[in-house]
Amino acid sequence: MNEQLAQSVRRLIDATIRTEVDVATLTAAQGKIDGATEQLSASLIPVSFGVRQTSDGQSTALGNVVIGARNPVAPPLVIHNDADGAVHADFVLGAAYEGPAAHVHGGVCALILDHVLGATAHLPGKPAYTGTLTIRYLRGTPLGQPLRVQAHVDRIDGPKTFAVGHIADAEGITVEAEGVFIHPRKAQR
Amino acid sequence: MNEQLAQSVRRLIDATIRTEVDVATLTAAQGKIDGATEQLSASLIPVSFGVRQTSDGQSTALGNVVIGARNPVAPPLVIHNDADGAVHADFVLGAAYEGPAAHVHGGVCALILDHVLGATAHLPGKPAYTGTLTIRYLRGTPLGQPLRVQAHVDRIDGPKTFAVGHIADAEGITVEAEGVFIHPRKAQR
Repeated sequence: MNEQLAQSVRRLIDATIRTEVDVATLTAAQGKIDGATEQLSASLIPVSFGVRQTSDGQSTALGNVVIGARNPVAPPLVIHNDADGAVHADFVLGAAYEGPAAHVHGGVCALILDHVLGATAHLPGKPAYTGTLTIRYLRGTPLGQPLRVQAHVDRIDGPKTFAVGHIADAEGITVEAEGVFIHPRKAQR
Repeated sequence: MNEQLAQSVRRLIDATIRTEVDVATLTAAQGKIDGATEQLSASLIPVSFGVRQTSDGQSTALGNVVIGARNPVAPPLVIHNDADGAVHADFVLGAAYEGPAAHVHGGVCALILDHVLGATAHLPGKPAYTGTLTIRYLRGTPLGQPLRVQAHVDRIDGPKTFAVGHIADAEGITVEAEGVFIHPRKAQR
């Protein structure tokens, strides 16, 4: 149910950016929105959603800005684990992610690549933290068109995992990335 | 007025992530949200907001995901141009930007640094595009606490502008970045 609510808010975000209605209609819509916020605020988690354990011991990040199903800012990305250890996700980004006109903000590409490269570097019980991330922009990434992000681990050197990946549209790669992820010693045993 | 609407939607996004109300209340709130979306959708710009010219010839990016005042996903960052050519912005990020529990997603730091480094590299009439961006994560960046991002041009070599910057909290720098920005020949005259 919280996920459905977030989906409704995603549609609202898009309409808020793109609307051309008159001031009276804007005012009426804002009244509804403020009313909904008041209802939802009757009981709130003190700070942020955090990362929680599910009943089967998996961790979930429903509030995450990239994959969180209850975070309206997240597209949300659904990351698939391939048989060979690589990961990928298919997605479309709308008006909310704009940088240059009609294109995805380059920093949003960096956000998505940071997350997906990190997803390849994580191992069960061994969380990884990003050390460095290098992004190379080849050309603009279009809004409103099918995109795919994919990543895999290139090599492992002691506590460092080197991951590479890219975002592509139907014509090919638009942005490439390399990340160095660190497995803290305390989690290595 | 559109900016006030976006501000209301930002509050709604935060409440959507953090709410703990029951299903009946969620359903009622969702009804209001869907009603507001329907009202705003009576007249929509076809695709995204784009970058527009104001009456005094300045370009505005009200739909931009980092600085866009009418984009609810944008914090929005207010970038100040310092006397020495550097830029800075003060901001606080809430639950909508979470990665690790209670911390800003590393990719959101990359998004903000990409934008602010780019802002130093832009010259009037000479738009710059990001070539590469390198992010170095020193430690976690906290949610809900005052942050400052700052950047400046380090050097210029032909069509390439090298910009550097960082994000800091009260204890110091959390993330550093270097970017190489390209001024396309056609815009150089």
